[in-house]
Amino acid sequence: MGTAARSVAPRAAAEVGAYDIDTDVLVVGYGCAGAAAAFEAAEAGARVLVLERSGGPGGASAMSGGEIYLGGGTPIQQACGFTDTPEQMAAFLRAALGPGADEAKIERYCADSVAHFHWLVARGVPFKPSLWDAPAWVPPTDDGLMWLGENSWPFTELATPAPRGHRPAANDFGGRLLMEVLTAAAENAGAQARFDSYATNLIRAEDGTITGVVARRYGREFTVRARRGVVLTTGGFVDDDRMLAAHAPRLLHHTKVSAGTDDGSGIRMAQAVGAAVRHMSAGQVGISLIPGFAARGMVVNGRGARFVNEDTYPGRIGQAALFRQDMDVWVVLDEQAYEAVPEPQRWGVRPTHVAETAEELEQLLGTPPGALAATIARYNEFAARGTDPDFHKAARWLRPLTPPLAAIDVRAGVRPPAETGDRRGTGASVFTLGGLHTTVDGEVLDLGGAPIPGLFAAGRAGSGLHGEGYISGTSLGDGTFFGRLAGRAAAR
Amino acid sequence: MGTAARSVAPRAAAEVGAYDIDTDVLVVGYGCAGAAAAFEAAEAGARVLVLERSGGPGGASAMSGGEIYLGGGTPIQQACGFTDTPEQMAAFLRAALGPGADEAKIERYCADSVAHFHWLVARGVPFKPSLWDAPAWVPPTDDGLMWLGENSWPFTELATPAPRGHRPAANDFGGRLLMEVLTAAAENAGAQARFDSYATNLIRAEDGTITGVVARRYGREFTVRARRGVVLTTGGFVDDDRMLAAHAPRLLHHTKVSAGTDDGSGIRMAQAVGAAVRHMSAGQVGISLIPGFAARGMVVNGRGARFVNEDTYPGRIGQAALFRQDMDVWVVLDEQAYEAVPEPQRWGVRPTHVAETAEELEQLLGTPPGALAATIARYNEFAARGTDPDFHKAARWLRPLTPPLAAIDVRAGVRPPAETGDRRGTGASVFTLGGLHTTVDGEVLDLGGAPIPGLFAAGRAGSGLHGEGYISGTSLGDGTFFGRLAGRAAAR
Repeated sequence: MGTAARSVAPRAAAEVGAYDIDTDVLVVGYGCAGAAAAFEAAEAGARVLVLERSGGPGGASAMSGGEIYLGGGTPIQQACGFTDTPEQMAAFLRAALGPGADEAKIERYCADSVAHFHWLVARGVPFKPSLWDAPAWVPPTDDGLMWLGENSWPFTELATPAPRGHRPAANDFGGRLLMEVLTAAAENAGAQARFDSYATNLIRAEDGTITGVVARRYGREFTVRARRGVVLTTGGFVDDDRMLAAHAPRLLHHTKVSAGTDDGSGIRMAQAVGAAVRHMSAGQVGISLIPGFAARGMVVNGRGARFVNEDTYPGRIGQAALFRQDMDVWVVLDEQAYEAVPEPQRWGVRPTHVAETAEELEQLLGTPPGALAATIARYNEFAARGTDPDFHKAARWLRPLTPPLAAIDVRAGVRPPAETGDRRGTGASVFTLGGLHTTVDGEVLDLGGAPIPGLFAAGRAGSGLHGEGYISGTSLGDGTFFGRLAGRAAAR
Repeated sequence: MGTAARSVAPRAAAEVGAYDIDTDVLVVGYGCAGAAAAFEAAEAGARVLVLERSGGPGGASAMSGGEIYLGGGTPIQQACGFTDTPEQMAAFLRAALGPGADEAKIERYCADSVAHFHWLVARGVPFKPSLWDAPAWVPPTDDGLMWLGENSWPFTELATPAPRGHRPAANDFGGRLLMEVLTAAAENAGAQARFDSYATNLIRAEDGTITGVVARRYGREFTVRARRGVVLTTGGFVDDDRMLAAHAPRLLHHTKVSAGTDDGSGIRMAQAVGAAVRHMSAGQVGISLIPGFAARGMVVNGRGARFVNEDTYPGRIGQAALFRQDMDVWVVLDEQAYEAVPEPQRWGVRPTHVAETAEELEQLLGTPPGALAATIARYNEFAARGTDPDFHKAARWLRPLTPPLAAIDVRAGVRPPAETGDRRGTGASVFTLGGLHTTVDGEVLDLGGAPIPGLFAAGRAGSGLHGEGYISGTSLGDGTFFGRLAGRAAAR
């Protein structure tokens, strides 16, 4: 959805007479980062108010699968038989979230990850000590641990593999449960919330300090004074097509992963007081069909060539498909591969093309003559030997494909039912990774690199840990982790 | 080179007592866009001052090859036997400069391109009516016209091909001549210049209007009042490693195409008053060896696979090499291909690997067994038939490669001597394309989409015509064209 031009310029504090509401720490946006910030600020003794534009808390966090990227030796990792260290976790994230990943944030995030696990458990997030051991967006079980590419090339050469995807044990997507737990924690700590309230402008004092926000509720403007700090946890900007066109045009026209409220308003309000941003072109690209089908089959582009190891983190395949192959991508498989995909990971999709030979299949797909047949022959030869010199797919997932062969256009994939029912899309579900430039403590930095007094941010309103890369669990992960730090810093 | 943190926050007009200098239109930066803006503003009757941080005019424009992207039926095109229309030109640019290209700017640029050609000629820019008919960065002749990918796939399917690279007839790179002509024109029109003067902050009135700038000269601060408008033509940000790390990390560590002064200061000063930017991750990627060697040979990635039609605009190959293949790229050729490359386009480079067979060559390169040999066999088969179903390289450039075979790591390429002598680099020379969001008339837009009163921009300080794509000649082209419009608008 586009948005009409509107001013996000700051309101001068001198122009604001009597504030309608007075608080210590004002949190804008009640997703996972907002809840974590509100909890910590309240725990630190501050009066806390959360403004949320929707009728209740949750945002995109509540609609997510609930994966939280944690490691360094959590009890769940240990129970499942894995050893891990903060250093190995950092080595993986550095490679997976780059180029442009935030080194200082990665270091802190990994060093304190076990402690953050315990904090989540103490709030009431349940994790079951069992492993889901295959690529998936959201495993169809309540297993508490999953791989997110750590055991795939090139990461296997850069860090000791350990699974770090931690999942709340829930009956459906774990994001809802996570948000129930976190909002209860924030409320119990004393944080207040005001819903249906959309922040439109920051309020700035003469000396540059952010002193509050202007917001609207049911069409009526009101002002909030924040005596200690404003924490922006408003989410990314995938719902604002003007911002996508300006910064991430390749993300336009795909299914948006959001609650419909990720319009970048917090990013723009902060930019209007001089805040710097990072990596606004970056995006996560989820192709629903990839994890289930890809690892068990083969992924090729429109020229019938492979371009990635099919057993890696599915979002890495998604980014390669969109940013490097322009979504001209097919999954190729045989009957055994199809049958091996768990029912929920098929999204109800049947092969779009079936053929008795590779030559026949490439004719059906319209790929250049001989190319796909050669690719399949080469892949099968590798598979028979159990090694993939081209893309280093792990031996476990290598198996010669035998006729009849089938292909699925990844654009046939549907979104997860929990998000949009069975609406068909372009094959890709996307959200933005770029946002405000913050310190480890969530201070928003200006264009010269100095903190803007009174202004903090966390969650996808900031770029967080991320450069151009992404791994599932790093949104709820850095949202809750750096949300906590921002809440504490704002309360000081 | 990095830059230390420094404030680009605006100075309040109320704080500025007596201005040191008073003018009507202040142009910041004396490259091609600044010269064009200064000329038009002076012609419109305004008092014009140009501030330039270097000791003289020129900037990156003066160091460039001088190509100007013009078309729609210029006299040079006609003399060389080509028909062209603004519509075909626009269709090409839309495809080549996207995704995210500025539709309104492309339309205006193409509609008025013949008129802009005549304006350049009237200023004294000489164009010779002859065609250089092979891929090149800078042809080693004074031919006035060259192809810039218009006759390559996929553009051949999207627009009627016509060459539109217009080159000033010069003894060396044409950029120097262009800048001599444009600065003389600006001076003759009455524009004044002040060199060694680095603008650091905009001055803003209470109502938001930009009224001038703060600048430094030999360590001493001074202020300039601009009664009608400030035009920022300060260039891109390839020289600021902090900005690259934040917005375009893939452009870090390559050779920078600039005069060393593209530090993004104009972009940041404008952002500090609420200006919006576009496409900050985008960059041109020039690989010196590509145009000469690629079309006559074959380009493969580290897995021995082709990934692009080798006869297309060399910057398109460069972007594919850096953004899609991580610069893991080889040129493969035979003796006939090597000998056919004009001496100046070899950059003194000899093949880094030579072998009697394709199998031997791939062992030398360390590419996966059998891959490169299969790629060469497939290419040779296509070449013998004169058709390339994989990447649509034109028949003219298809010829079977015969042993002995050679390979050149593109990272062995050196920069053009005119820029840096013979220093070796990473193989890529880069500059940034992203910048301020402007209207066709150069008005700088704020984050809400409204013009910032008194503030204009052109050249690479803005994103201009560009989305993520690039074509040579569109920097001098949109710099001079939209520089003129911005100068006129500022003078009003």
